Amino acid sequence: MSSTAGQVIRCKAAVAWEAGKPLVMEEVEVAPPQAMEVRVKILFTALCHTDVYFWEAKGQTPLFPRIFGHEAGGIVESVGTGVTDLKPGDHVLPVFTGECKECRHCKSEESNMCDLLRINTDRGVMLNDGKSRFTIKGQPIYHFVGTSTFSEYTVVHVGCLAKINPAAPLDKVCILSCGISTGLGATLNVAKPKKGSTVAIFGLGAVGLAAAEGARLSGASRIIGVDLNSNKFNEAKKFGVTEFVNPKDHKKPVQEVIAEMTNGGVDRSVECTGSINAMISAFECVHDGWGVAVLVGVPNKDDSFKTHPVNFLNERTLKGTFFGNYKPRSDIPAVVEKYMNKELELEKFITHEVPFSEINKAFDYMLNGESLRCIIRMGA
Amino acid sequence: MSSTAGQVIRCKAAVAWEAGKPLVMEEVEVAPPQAMEVRVKILFTALCHTDVYFWEAKGQTPLFPRIFGHEAGGIVESVGTGVTDLKPGDHVLPVFTGECKECRHCKSEESNMCDLLRINTDRGVMLNDGKSRFTIKGQPIYHFVGTSTFSEYTVVHVGCLAKINPAAPLDKVCILSCGISTGLGATLNVAKPKKGSTVAIFGLGAVGLAAAEGARLSGASRIIGVDLNSNKFNEAKKFGVTEFVNPKDHKKPVQEVIAEMTNGGVDRSVECTGSINAMISAFECVHDGWGVAVLVGVPNKDDSFKTHPVNFLNERTLKGTFFGNYKPRSDIPAVVEKYMNKELELEKFITHEVPFSEINKAFDYMLNGESLRCIIRMGA
Ligand SMILES: NC(=O)c1ccc[n+]([C@@H]2O[C@H](COP(=O)([O-])OP(=O)(O)OC[C@H]3O[C@@H](n4cnc5c(N)ncnc54)[C@H](O)[C@@H]3O)[C@@H](O)[C@H]2O)c1
Ligand SMILES: NC(=O)c1ccc[n+]([C@@H]2O[C@H](COP(=O)([O-])OP(=O)(O)OC[C@H]3O[C@@H](n4cnc5c(N)ncnc54)[C@H](O)[C@@H]3O)[C@@H](O)[C@H]2O)c1
Ligand SMILES: [Zn+2]
Ligand SMILES: [Zn+2]
Ligand SMILES: [Zn+2]
Ligand SMILES: [Zn+2]
Repeated sequence: MSSTAGQVIRCKAAVAWEAGKPLVMEEVEVAPPQAMEVRVKILFTALCHTDVYFWEAKGQTPLFPRIFGHEAGGIVESVGTGVTDLKPGDHVLPVFTGECKECRHCKSEESNMCDLLRINTDRGVMLNDGKSRFTIKGQPIYHFVGTSTFSEYTVVHVGCLAKINPAAPLDKVCILSCGISTGLGATLNVAKPKKGSTVAIFGLGAVGLAAAEGARLSGASRIIGVDLNSNKFNEAKKFGVTEFVNPKDHKKPVQEVIAEMTNGGVDRSVECTGSINAMISAFECVHDGWGVAVLVGVPNKDDSFKTHPVNFLNERTLKGTFFGNYKPRSDIPAVVEKYMNKELELEKFITHEVPFSEINKAFDYMLNGESLRCIIRMGA
Repeated sequence: MSSTAGQVIRCKAAVAWEAGKPLVMEEVEVAPPQAMEVRVKILFTALCHTDVYFWEAKGQTPLFPRIFGHEAGGIVESVGTGVTDLKPGDHVLPVFTGECKECRHCKSEESNMCDLLRINTDRGVMLNDGKSRFTIKGQPIYHFVGTSTFSEYTVVHVGCLAKINPAAPLDKVCILSCGISTGLGATLNVAKPKKGSTVAIFGLGAVGLAAAEGARLSGASRIIGVDLNSNKFNEAKKFGVTEFVNPKDHKKPVQEVIAEMTNGGVDRSVECTGSINAMISAFECVHDGWGVAVLVGVPNKDDSFKTHPVNFLNERTLKGTFFGNYKPRSDIPAVVEKYMNKELELEKFITHEVPFSEINKAFDYMLNGESLRCIIRMGA
């Protein structure tokens, strides 16, 4: 039992008071965990586009003041009533989507879209009492996707915590909380390329590069990267991407360019852009008879996916995935083991590192397109 | 060696001289099989919509005079050079799409879309010499999809013949040549419902009812039939359909009606209509997380499949299939065995039977919507 258990903890957190304004380091009060909740000491966190997107709050309902952050690694400080799977000292990765282990989705082998703990970007409070665990001098500060890892301590539902190997370095495996697992799982769990196959990856951001890493792990012999920004190719080579296509360099649709390069189409494609055009191209560029395309990118509200139905009848498959089809508690510990076995490479995703006090620099790196992942060290 | 081997055979055939005009019984000359070809004595044939569609020749390039027919059972009379898999006396089902066993599709576990022998409705001749094997007093008569089974003898590429158990009654298993296998395989090979699951079947023609038969064999606990024609439901009950929805009876889209009936959607759906609206509904009515929809119907040229991409991201899968993903030579013999084991029921598909001389009646039954399958007895 830690001496802080059951007590309010005062610690530092980076608070977003207003949309698009630099985060402010504040002293916050973190209430003890309630039923099925866990209080976690965060050691490392990373910045993902989704944090920036909701911080900018263009389009979505703004919810401020709020503590962002959802890619992180930490250690359990104390647990609330009913928590049996975790105890103080356990190493954990918070995840923005959860696994209650009891709903139809959690019981299905195929789904990870838990009815109880599925991502909810509009909710800024905990499920148990509809309230926040964060306050500043009594004023509640909203949570973000149930994780709020830009704080030295946070409270998370037990269903949103993956218990991992305590030997795993948290400053590396923390990036498995979101984007990297999303791309990796899209390839390994959903596209499932066979050894020697040809894979196209649309979008060479962190998610797409993780999808390419999945293709490399699967033994794909050709990995074709597709991006509107040709600068992405250099970096992408480190991730096993063997060829590059910029749709802007061609008059014909990129699916036709790829079909010509591959004698009729790729075996698998993974779309990691969020662009509807890329989604359609990613589907239409797979080979008839056996091709499988997987959508990962988050589209706009009004987008419509359009294709001729004969593209399906010619035995093509289209699937979408959410968090790489990983169940956070059941599956993420094994992804950490893939890193421990030196199968999966994570270092190449980590392009920057800053102390917690300089968290706003991580936003600048991402906004300038300089970083893949910037690790934020809480201790410093 | 049969006494007719190497000789031209004179026999009866039902010839379509003109689009939409009754077939005419003629004496035709059937040339001996060339390299990789087999001459087959047809004992039973059945009528399928595809025959009627190309006979009506509305839309497609007309090719007349032609001998239609592609669902049949027969016995090998003689074989051409290079044929090692079949010998005179073997029982065979001709199939409109083939399996060369050598191309990338035939070598792929996933595809049955053979590069060499994939269905070609425009070709009226044999591959070997680009000529027809049928003549009437020297005038060539075109073949249809490489089968032309409305003739007492026909010549077929060895890759389009499934060698089956000689104990199987050809007057029953002949219907496995096309539509029944298409629907059955769409469910068994592609949708793959688990025991106890809920399946929606769109379109309750012969193909849809065969898809329902597949759902029954898979142990589905609910089979929801969807058709614009409510008369179809009575017949469909024999095929295990447990519930019926007519989209015309509802103000809201049928996918919403089905979602309400099933607590969020069916586990699997199979579309067997050819209507683009049904294709979209069949996709959108599957449950998020695990739902799989399979398209079977042949759409119109200008149709566009449209849906919001989030329907994919919520972990739904959309696939299409051709001939139920069966490879004719490798897989159809085992389907015949399913019938022999009394697993698969075929009798209920056979609603009519006529002697060859009355083949035009089979067209009438189909055009009036009276028949599922009408068997045509060649001997009589
Ligand atoms: N970042 C995450 O953690 C995460 C998690 C789940 C899902 N997603 C979704 O995955 C997608 C990718 O995320 P990311 O963080 O890698 O984004 P990113 O912006 O870093 O990368 C996207 C890449 O796609 C390229 N692109 C855009 N339109 C394109 C087109 N039409 N054709 C080819 N390339 C195109 C861009 O140039 C960019 O390089 C986003 O839609 C995101 O919402 C992200
Ligand atoms: N018949 C074959 O051997 C075969 C083989 C392969 C593929 N196909 C394709 O499969 C499809 C079905 O073949 P079939 O022989 O069973 O045809 P069919 O005409 O006998 O049956 C189609 C059924 O779909 C229903 N329908 C039409 N539009 C609908 C809608 N929007 N919603 C619900 N129901 C609707 C019709 O009322 C009809 O009962 C066709 O597109 C055909 O081209 C057929
Ligand atoms: Zn759950
Ligand atoms: Zn993220
Ligand atoms: Zn082939
Ligand atoms: Zn047919």
